Order: sequence, then C-alpha cells, then structure tokens
Amino acid sequence: MREYNVAILGATGAVGTRMIQQLEQSTIPTKSVKLLASSRSAGKKLKFKGKELTVEETTPDSFNGIDLVLASAGGSVSAKYLPEAVKRGAVCVDNTSHFRMDPEVPLVVPEINADRVEEHRGILSDPNCSTIQMVMALGPIYRKFGLKQVICSTYQAVSGAGQSALNELMEESQQVLNGEPVHPKILPTKGDKKHYQMAFNLLPQIDVFHDDGYTHEEWKMIHETKKILLNDMNAKDIKVTATCVRVPIRIAHGETVYFEVEDKSATADQIRDLLEKAPGVVVQDDPAHQIYPQSILAEGKRDTFVGRIRPDLENKGAFNMWVVSDNLLKGAAWNAVQIAEELVKRDLVRVPDNPYIPENK
Amino acid sequence: MREYNVAILGATGAVGTRMIQQLEQSTIPTKSVKLLASSRSAGKKLKFKGKELTVEETTPDSFNGIDLVLASAGGSVSAKYLPEAVKRGAVCVDNTSHFRMDPEVPLVVPEINADRVEEHRGILSDPNCSTIQMVMALGPIYRKFGLKQVICSTYQAVSGAGQSALNELMEESQQVLNGEPVHPKILPTKGDKKHYQMAFNLLPQIDVFHDDGYTHEEWKMIHETKKILLNDMNAKDIKVTATCVRVPIRIAHGETVYFEVEDKSATADQIRDLLEKAPGVVVQDDPAHQIYPQSILAEGKRDTFVGRIRPDLENKGAFNMWVVSDNLLKGAAWNAVQIAEELVKRDLVRVPDNPYIPENK
Repeated sequence: MREYNVAILGATGAVGTRMIQQLEQSTIPTKSVKLLASSRSAGKKLKFKGKELTVEETTPDSFNGIDLVLASAGGSVSAKYLPEAVKRGAVCVDNTSHFRMDPEVPLVVPEINADRVEEHRGILSDPNCSTIQMVMALGPIYRKFGLKQVICSTYQAVSGAGQSALNELMEESQQVLNGEPVHPKILPTKGDKKHYQMAFNLLPQIDVFHDDGYTHEEWKMIHETKKILLNDMNAKDIKVTATCVRVPIRIAHGETVYFEVEDKSATADQIRDLLEKAPGVVVQDDPAHQIYPQSILAEGKRDTFVGRIRPDLENKGAFNMWVVSDNLLKGAAWNAVQIAEELVKRDLVRVPDNPYIPENK
Repeated sequence: MREYNVAILGATGAVGTRMIQQLEQSTIPTKSVKLLASSRSAGKKLKFKGKELTVEETTPDSFNGIDLVLASAGGSVSAKYLPEAVKRGAVCVDNTSHFRMDPEVPLVVPEINADRVEEHRGILSDPNCSTIQMVMALGPIYRKFGLKQVICSTYQAVSGAGQSALNELMEESQQVLNGEPVHPKILPTKGDKKHYQMAFNLLPQIDVFHDDGYTHEEWKMIHETKKILLNDMNAKDIKVTATCVRVPIRIAHGETVYFEVEDKSATADQIRDLLEKAPGVVVQDDPAHQIYPQSILAEGKRDTFVGRIRPDLENKGAFNMWVVSDNLLKGAAWNAVQIAEELVKRDLVRVPDNPYIPENK
C-alpha cells in the first residue's frame, strides 16, 4: 500500500489545526506529515497521532518530496506556493478561494461531484464553506427533481473569518457584558477599511463588495454552486442569489434556503426521504418535538444538518429549508481531507504529465 | 384641547416600559397615566414625565374613566381585559397577537395604512415586530411597482421574547465565556416544552409550530402582511413566505427580504429613491463606504433602516434588501403610540355606538 508524504500549509490556523485532526482520523496512509506556516508561526509545536511536530516556515523547497498538500493559509499564500508544490510533484487540495474559478481546477464536494477529481492537473479546490453546506442539501434535490431557482440567506459564524476574528468576538462579548467599550479591528472583514462591533450585532458584509452591490462571499455562493452542480460557473440553468450575514456565533453556519424545483409534483416528504438517504446529510426535522438543526449541535460534526423542510404554501414546487454545518469541518478541513481521500482511493495522488502550473500574477 | 386618561397594560415589561417612554415623547396630551400589570408587579414605581407612578394590579374596574389603553401584557391578558376596557368606553391599542386577525379589528402601521384607524370599534392591533419592519420597506414599493412575491428570512433579537429572555441570553453568554454549563428555561419560546441554549447559537423556532411545519411567527408574517397591504389576511395577490430564526443579539431584528415586483422596469436606484422619501424609513446603502443597517445602530431609534438594495442578477424585476429596526420601538411600543397619535389627530379616541366587545373564549 502506498503511503504519502503530506504537507499542511497554514497548519496553525482555525482550519489548519482541524486539517491535522481530520487527516489523523482519515483513511489516508501517511508516511510523513510536515506542518508549514509563516515565519511568525514557525517553531510552534503541534501533535499528529501523538507525535510532536515542529511547524516550519514555508519556502518553495518545503515541498520537495511531498506527495499531497492541504492548503489553508490564505489566497496569496496558495497563489505563491501551490505552483511551486505542483512543479515538485505534489498534488494540492486548496481551501482558499484563489483557484476555485479557474477552469483548469476542479471544485469538489465529494458527495456531489467526486468524479471531477479525475480531471485534476495538480491543483483541486475546496469550495467556500457556505457553498458546501448548501450544495450538500441541494445536490440530491437537483438530481431527482431539477432546480429552477435558489435564494439563500446565510447566518455565518465568526470562525469563518479566522481564529483572530473568533478571539475578537469573545473579547467583545465580555466587554459588552461588562458595559465596557469595544475596539473592533478585524470584523466584518480584515481586508476592508472599516471595522465594526460583532458581539450582539448583525453585519451584512462578508468579504469585500463588488461594484454590483453583492459581496464577494455572495458572488462565491452564486458561481461556486453553478460550477459544482452544472460544471460551469456562469451556467444559466439554475438561478442562484444570496445574502450573506455574519452573526455573533462561533462555529457552524446556518442558512435558509428557498428553492424551486422543475418537477412540480415534488413533495416535502419526498425531499425529506431523499435527504435522509443522502451521504453526509443528517435530517433533523421533527417540529412537533422541536427537532431542528442548531449551530451548537453541529459543532465538531462532519455532517450537514437539514431541517424545517416545508413547501411554500402559495408557490407549488417551491420549498423552504434550514441547513447547518460546521464551517471549519465540512465547510473547510473535512471536505479538503475528503477530496484527498477520494484522490487516494482512485490512486490519483500524482501530478499528471501535463501539469497545471498557474503563473503567480 | 382634549386631554386623555391613558392606561398602559403590562407597564413593567420590555415593551411596556418603552410604551411609557414613547408616550412621554409623543404628541398625545395626557391628563393622567395609569400603569397596570399583574399582581406580581403591583407596587413597583415607574416614572412618567418625572412624576413617580405606582404600578397597580389590573382589574376590570381599572379601566373606569380611561380614554385610551396601550396593551402589551400578553395575549390572554388582552383577551380578558380589553373587552372590559371597551365596555367602559376606552379605546385600546393592543400590541399582542390576540385580536390581529379579527376582521373587526384594524391592523395598523400608520405610514402604510393609517386610514384603517377610521374603522375601529374600540380595539386596534399593533402588528408583529417582524411584520412591521418588513411592511415599512415593502409598502412604498408595493404602491409604486406592485408586488408578486416576497421571501423573508429573519434574524430576530432575543428581546422579542421579553425581558426574561433577554436576561437569559446575557446570563448564558457569561456562562459560555466562563466555560460553565448553561441552564435554558425560556428560549426559544416560553410556551413550548423544550428550551435550548441561545448564547452563541441559532434557533430556527420563534413561537410554536403549526401542523404545516411553519411556526406561528412565520404564519403571522404571511397573514399580517396581507392584511396590512391588501386588507385581507388570505388575499392571494401577493405571495408571501418566511423563515424566522432567533439569533443571539439583544435588540433590533434583521431581515433579508427578497421581492419580485409587477413592474419589471423597476430598478434598484428607483427603489432606493422611493425608500429615501418614505416616512419612517432611513436608507443606509453605500457599500463602497461599508454603510448598511446594523442592529446596534438601530437600537433606540424609531426608524426602519434599509440597505443592501440590489437586483437579483438573473431574475429581472426581483431584488434583495436588508431591513433592520428596533423591535421594541417601531416593532412594538412606538408603532402602538403612533396608532394612538393617529387616533388623537383624527379625534377618534372614542368608542363608537356599535362597539366591538369580543367574547373572551
């Protein structure tokens, strides 16, 4: 049995630490594990299967001898280092948004479009957290009943903006409880100019704004969903729109998903049955007993939880549902490790003869 | 100038205390103000315009000599006492849901359907908080462009479940920050069997469930919107659906509102202009400068704040927007006092010859 030399790029972050943990619990046979980060984090000690590993500073040569890279250190870091890794023969599963829309890069949610891994030329992308959990619920519905339109509103956990944002929420929460002033420095998004209080507040901005008034997070949900379900980021077959809102919770995004199917004979019971059988999906939908997905129940779980499935009472063929999943696991680390498992299973942890080595612009 | 003897029923609650404050700041000339509550709160002292008033226990005879009642002590209290008040010649503005769907009771948002107050026979209803702020934004759009469909997702503040729920959120938040266990007793809704942690969590249940899978809160949003905009709680002219979610914030609900207008030539700029001119609405919509409605900015304000107005990029004539308002003010106390101001202005603070005295079933 082949064993793999694995590198985790961005190993000390909220997603990186979970990549270590998910890799530990995966079916992937590891020969060695290398933890990479910026110079700031180099020297830190982290454990893999009980063995202490020292975090190293990333350089192009860090990838010599590596078979598989799991990357989650930010878009510019992936842009810089993944071409170097591919050049050195490593297959990369990238959790950043940098390569997601590149037509040469498969965008994969294994339960939904695993076969796309066959097309890889060195880099594969892990979709955005909010896209993954929506597509986990919509994929089986699309296949069985078709989809005309999707309207999503997100309730996104602060950990999606990284460990420092999570620390900021906790600090601010204590300050508000103490009646003290808060000093926002990170949220809604590090990359923008103004920062606002997150504790006990709602911020309808995730990532930066495009000129059309949508945020980049909303843009991702629209185009990634099309790329995953229709294999074309601009496909018109399914209309998708979204409003993304950051809410003061720590882990596990919530989403209301309104969707209209092609097959108007579809019923909520049929959709519930379908999702109950769908791999990676757990239906929690028993209103009479107050059973529905909650963030604190989804935290630490690999599954996507779906509930509140019910028809629009006035629009036949349209339905509402509520979807919750751990944004750091299925929304990031676990989906990335799952893609790697899929590559291992299909013996595809090898850079092909025509590697894709994007220029770092 | 006529002066009024006013009674506030449920004066010690989260809404009741704000009714006192909004009445103080209103144009209503008061001769006397009587504060009523349950026996538990009787004896408490509260101030009105600097004068200390003692809260009295409510009895039918509490309403002798009263001209105007503002009620927010719960549905069963309104059911019991408002008929007694009307019998004694008092006009009642009820903030509970008890009489809202009664065809004999006008359901009023003054900026939208003020004329309905003319039809009152003793009782008028204040709509649900989440309905009011949605209708404040949709009313002007409906009049100008028509409306085909509305899909709303709410992000509702905990104060909507009362002062004790708000206390529970604050206690639980501190417990979570301390790493201690929480002991939920109230949320998601006092009237249901199970109680869940609200701090750092999302609960997709507000009020109890109907057999069709919708919560009573969602039912209210659907039918109250129709009654306010179309004067018929079951009208089919506008399709409305909603998913209501409680989020761990204190005051000022958020709502994503997706709507499709009749007039497909409508643009986001036209809708923005329209809302900028709408009374009681403040447009905060400048993404380039990260200007959008936030709960902590809306707290303590009477206005409804609207932002993130943008077209659905794939569905002409459909738009997304984000609406925030203080659920205790415009969503409750202020809208109730505003209805009373409207009655005063039209000299309608008198029970007509054919009073409506509903039986307390």
